[in-house]
Amino acid sequence: MIIRNKENWFKMLFVWHGSVLPKLLPRLSLLFILSIGVVFFNGKIFSFKIPLNPTPLTLFGFVLALFLGFRNNVSYDRFWEARKLWGALLNYTRSLTRQVLTLPEPRVDRSLARHFIDLLVSFTYALKHQLRDTDPQHDLKERLSEADYSLIISAKFKPVIIMKLMGEWVAGARRTGRIDAIQQMRFDENLDKLAEIVGGCERIISTPIPYSYRVLLHRTVYLYCFLLPFGLVDSLQWLTPFIVVFIAYTFVAFEAIADEIEQPFGTASNDLALNVMCKTIEATLTELNGEEISLNISPKNGIID
Amino acid sequence: MIIRNKENWFKMLFVWHGSVLPKLLPRLSLLFILSIGVVFFNGKIFSFKIPLNPTPLTLFGFVLALFLGFRNNVSYDRFWEARKLWGALLNYTRSLTRQVLTLPEPRVDRSLARHFIDLLVSFTYALKHQLRDTDPQHDLKERLSEADYSLIISAKFKPVIIMKLMGEWVAGARRTGRIDAIQQMRFDENLDKLAEIVGGCERIISTPIPYSYRVLLHRTVYLYCFLLPFGLVDSLQWLTPFIVVFIAYTFVAFEAIADEIEQPFGTASNDLALNVMCKTIEATLTELNGEEISLNISPKNGIID
Amino acid sequence: MIIRNKENWFKMLFVWHGSVLPKLLPRLSLLFILSIGVVFFNGKIFSFKIPLNPTPLTLFGFVLALFLGFRNNVSYDRFWEARKLWGALLNYTRSLTRQVLTLPEPRVDRSLARHFIDLLVSFTYALKHQLRDTDPQHDLKERLSEADYSLIISAKFKPVIIMKLMGEWVAGARRTGRIDAIQQMRFDENLDKLAEIVGGCERIISTPIPYSYRVLLHRTVYLYCFLLPFGLVDSLQWLTPFIVVFIAYTFVAFEAIADEIEQPFGTASNDLALNVMCKTIEATLTELNGEEISLNISPKNGIID
Amino acid sequence: MIIRNKENWFKMLFVWHGSVLPKLLPRLSLLFILSIGVVFFNGKIFSFKIPLNPTPLTLFGFVLALFLGFRNNVSYDRFWEARKLWGALLNYTRSLTRQVLTLPEPRVDRSLARHFIDLLVSFTYALKHQLRDTDPQHDLKERLSEADYSLIISAKFKPVIIMKLMGEWVAGARRTGRIDAIQQMRFDENLDKLAEIVGGCERIISTPIPYSYRVLLHRTVYLYCFLLPFGLVDSLQWLTPFIVVFIAYTFVAFEAIADEIEQPFGTASNDLALNVMCKTIEATLTELNGEEISLNISPKNGIID
Amino acid sequence: MIIRNKENWFKMLFVWHGSVLPKLLPRLSLLFILSIGVVFFNGKIFSFKIPLNPTPLTLFGFVLALFLGFRNNVSYDRFWEARKLWGALLNYTRSLTRQVLTLPEPRVDRSLARHFIDLLVSFTYALKHQLRDTDPQHDLKERLSEADYSLIISAKFKPVIIMKLMGEWVAGARRTGRIDAIQQMRFDENLDKLAEIVGGCERIISTPIPYSYRVLLHRTVYLYCFLLPFGLVDSLQWLTPFIVVFIAYTFVAFEAIADEIEQPFGTASNDLALNVMCKTIEATLTELNGEEISLNISPKNGIID
Repeated sequence: MIIRNKENWFKMLFVWHGSVLPKLLPRLSLLFILSIGVVFFNGKIFSFKIPLNPTPLTLFGFVLALFLGFRNNVSYDRFWEARKLWGALLNYTRSLTRQVLTLPEPRVDRSLARHFIDLLVSFTYALKHQLRDTDPQHDLKERLSEADYSLIISAKFKPVIIMKLMGEWVAGARRTGRIDAIQQMRFDENLDKLAEIVGGCERIISTPIPYSYRVLLHRTVYLYCFLLPFGLVDSLQWLTPFIVVFIAYTFVAFEAIADEIEQPFGTASNDLALNVMCKTIEATLTELNGEEISLNISPKNGIID
Repeated sequence: MIIRNKENWFKMLFVWHGSVLPKLLPRLSLLFILSIGVVFFNGKIFSFKIPLNPTPLTLFGFVLALFLGFRNNVSYDRFWEARKLWGALLNYTRSLTRQVLTLPEPRVDRSLARHFIDLLVSFTYALKHQLRDTDPQHDLKERLSEADYSLIISAKFKPVIIMKLMGEWVAGARRTGRIDAIQQMRFDENLDKLAEIVGGCERIISTPIPYSYRVLLHRTVYLYCFLLPFGLVDSLQWLTPFIVVFIAYTFVAFEAIADEIEQPFGTASNDLALNVMCKTIEATLTELNGEEISLNISPKNGIID
Repeated sequence: MIIRNKENWFKMLFVWHGSVLPKLLPRLSLLFILSIGVVFFNGKIFSFKIPLNPTPLTLFGFVLALFLGFRNNVSYDRFWEARKLWGALLNYTRSLTRQVLTLPEPRVDRSLARHFIDLLVSFTYALKHQLRDTDPQHDLKERLSEADYSLIISAKFKPVIIMKLMGEWVAGARRTGRIDAIQQMRFDENLDKLAEIVGGCERIISTPIPYSYRVLLHRTVYLYCFLLPFGLVDSLQWLTPFIVVFIAYTFVAFEAIADEIEQPFGTASNDLALNVMCKTIEATLTELNGEEISLNISPKNGIID
Repeated sequence: MIIRNKENWFKMLFVWHGSVLPKLLPRLSLLFILSIGVVFFNGKIFSFKIPLNPTPLTLFGFVLALFLGFRNNVSYDRFWEARKLWGALLNYTRSLTRQVLTLPEPRVDRSLARHFIDLLVSFTYALKHQLRDTDPQHDLKERLSEADYSLIISAKFKPVIIMKLMGEWVAGARRTGRIDAIQQMRFDENLDKLAEIVGGCERIISTPIPYSYRVLLHRTVYLYCFLLPFGLVDSLQWLTPFIVVFIAYTFVAFEAIADEIEQPFGTASNDLALNVMCKTIEATLTELNGEEISLNISPKNGIID
Repeated sequence: MIIRNKENWFKMLFVWHGSVLPKLLPRLSLLFILSIGVVFFNGKIFSFKIPLNPTPLTLFGFVLALFLGFRNNVSYDRFWEARKLWGALLNYTRSLTRQVLTLPEPRVDRSLARHFIDLLVSFTYALKHQLRDTDPQHDLKERLSEADYSLIISAKFKPVIIMKLMGEWVAGARRTGRIDAIQQMRFDENLDKLAEIVGGCERIISTPIPYSYRVLLHRTVYLYCFLLPFGLVDSLQWLTPFIVVFIAYTFVAFEAIADEIEQPFGTASNDLALNVMCKTIEATLTELNGEEISLNISPKNGIID
């Protein structure tokens, strides 16, 4: 995720990092060269004049606006739902920690509480690694006991297994009479919420926008941009390449951003900062447990991942 | 569902599989031939010039954009709600399994837990078969006891009957004193959630978009496409067939995709991969129960069903 | 609700039943005749040329698109919310039945269960009759005991009174020690859900879209259609009546459908099939209770009500 | 709220009451006169021709459509959320009444139940008076005991204090052993829902749409209307005033309705009928308590308040 | 937040405070001067005529409308979600206070209740200060005991620590037998809600709209405005600067408001009045506890913060 202070409206016009422009430069250059060619030959191909005018471009504009709007809303909804799920993760891990610390009677000692909190934090990291398809070994090993670690590391659905271990922690507290049936139920309800978070993230990552939509939109955008110079050359003359590239930039960049945030769990510059969220969760749970914390989030090149 | 790796923006322009183009080819060819005819006769029919120009097409554009946008949003919402319901199915079956494994005191033995998990998995398959209107015999027979199977197979609303069997499993655990009233309530709440999932899927499948909408939109799109060559021939001349087919492709394909995902439980290439979801649920529940799993999802021609 | 198999794209263009065309025919004929007049007199009224051109029609197009889109979304949302409420009715009656059959210890006998199910089914029918403002006597009499029937039939808010009877059934089960406080709570929660369904339906039926909206939109649509021939006659000549009627058909039909589904509990052809839903609920509850069912839903002229 | 039977499509074009036209007449007359002036002087001011054409009006159209659409959706969402909150009020007061009548063992006598119902109904009226900023004395005095009344009438947040009294009623029932902890919890949960309803209504009334939006939209709409005659006079000539007023009517009326329903708790003709809803709630709760009711809702001039 | 009485439609056209116009004046002046230059040189730069006409501006209009609409909806949704979270804060603090006052048996004395209410109010202030990044010392010190204060003030996530203290208050009430397990659960559930509110606010403040969107939209809006005079000068002549500035004002102001309410927790004039909400919560909780209140909210220059 890109972290930036608010900028002057004028400076913001020339921002380079954080804009998708660099990535799109080759395509736009291609279009620029094509447009120059179109101007040079006055919109003729082998002395055949391409009889294109703005009318079909306007008609097309309706569909494109429709398409891009739809694609974009869906992508942003996915992005925001993913963020909500990770926000809920923060909420429920905090609530579970509060419950561990205040419900049992007599209180659980700090190391027992620490065990549960370690499971919660490992759960968070395991989910992150599953979503990013990275190796969870390091993050899990340093937080879990040997027994828990070996059980989890061989599993395919690691966060789900960790949830079961939490369930067993709670069952243990019940067995030793520290909590009663009602309190166990409160834990159990919040474990259900964790299951919803895992499933929600898996849903987003496993079900992209229907592929046919993406193909169709992609084609429409690029063909539109390719037709633009032919439609505009008669009226804009030598200005054509500039206007065409600018219009195209807006359309193509819009599609590119939508494409980037559609899968918000990756590490592209507009994706969610799962790493930072894991660290924040660990810090807030540790603080709740009465321990010292040091939370240090420093963006690299204005980006946190 | 179509599974594809991210492709180069250029290659994606020429994708054939996964695009709806093949299905639409006959209609578009028809339109192409019509447009050639229109160009050939200069927009005249029996020497009567059809006095159509872009103005009514633009006016029409507003309605079409409106219509297609509405149709599309509704279809996508249905698709995504269906996906959410199946995602919730994953969540609640996992939660119920965790409860079976951690709530009872003393623990239920593995075969008793297996019985409940088999009911959950059968529930999933029964729902899939009901939604796809396919034969559930094979999938149910291999997972259920003889008694359960004969009870379920003759029922009309199979998943509902399986839910009742789960309720009886829970009542049994209560009767033998393994769980108390509170824990039974937790099970019962999650069984209610399963009922909501079944009802939600039945709602989507039994209530399509009001038929009058579909007829009206269909007519508007096709008549619009049919009028296009007459309106554009004067300005676009020999380019008319290409532009017309391209605009029409976008409109018609948009409607076709919306039509496909409106009923997301089918087996068309953009529908939900219910089969894979059933297998995933079975794998994750089995893993939770401490058994080995092998989950093998290999797309055929880039499609999972 | 109109039930139709998927049709060939070509045949669908000429569907007559299920389209709103028949209802709109008189208005469109009027417009057609007006347009012919406009063409005949070249857009003059008493030799005064009406100086209308497409420009104001385009400006107007923005407002209309806006208006129709809004009206339509709101109407569809009402339709779909109503459907969701009836879907929830299915879910919660099933859940309550499952609870009646699995929670009490010892089991309630079949006739006692039957009593509760009869209340649930009567509740469903009473709600339907209240929403459609039809006579519930027949449907209630054959399902309820004499005492219950006389209590309910004189009430104004019948479903609410039936809910209270269910509450008393549950309180009776509690008094006889068959269920404990926790289980009573589970019943009570689901009765609350039924109350939400009743209130939700009453909300939809008692609060239409603000009347001023409807008047304004109605005027805008019709005046737009009336101005169309004057604006188009100069460029479209003899084609004017056809194009005008076609554009008008789309606008007017769009408004007409939105108007129809705004109150989705009626018996118009696009309204919800409450009758079929009542029968389905009765069938699934009866099946859950272990009895034979015969569910026979046959559309009349492709319509279920 | 305006209550009207469905009207013939033709008659609806000439409705006067219930349309916002009367309120807007002065502004539109002003615009009409201005337009006549513009036509008379051919769009010249002191012999300077205003060189306005439809192009900037079209460009502007995009922004306006955007703006009005946004403003309108937000206003309607507020209207509908307010209606949902009052619908929820109906649901939860019914549920609480059902609980009062069926949960306690032994039953509470009718006068004790009546006390709780009176609190519920007073709660409803108190909320109405708070939202409409009217005097609640009369409505509260006739329904409450002297003690309760004096406690409530001096409070600033009256419905909240009434909620506390309900909590004390429930605590009293608990103390006398009529309900157990679980049942108290069920009451308590529904009291929480009432708190959400009060807070939701207060949120809507205390937080209008950001003021800057309203100013900006207002300016855009009126300036647009003011520019219209200059832009259209060259092509529409003497027809200009009619077309201008008609387009302006649609825009301005749209904004006026949105403005009216933005604060839906007032007594303007499109606002919610809180009075009728209070009466309905009182009637349904009284009927539930087994008493006779007479619910008489007769619109005055087709309006209920 | 700007507090204004309803104004006459005419006066509202000339409102200065509360409009974003003052802030945008420099940019618009720049554009005005540029436009005058363009008119003066007839759209030529060094005797090269810039061949721009309205066509690309119309094409562009589609994208802009799309973009602005999206940006605006997202910003408003964030604003409204933030308001809902603070509304929920009001609801749940009221509910918790009602529970403190009515659930324990025997009643807690006023000072003990006061302790809990102080924690709730401190929680509210701590959240406000965290969101606005201001110093909470003063507000916390006067409401908390020395022990609580020193514990909280050194914490990074202050509201979360306060929540834990509330949990301990509840656990204390349980230990002394004033509440039972069920009632503790009711408290615990509402503490979970508070955790959701904290997390929700943190989510909104830590995750702005993806930066690339903002850059792209910003560029598109300003470049569009810069191109406007060149595209309009031929047809509008000396009117160009006025029309250009007016269109630009609308676009730019729209973006500026969206930018302002995107982070609704600040102190800009359209942001949420967190201060007033804190005071309201304190007043209503105090009143519930049977104490006198004086709630005095007076806007400064029509603005509450």
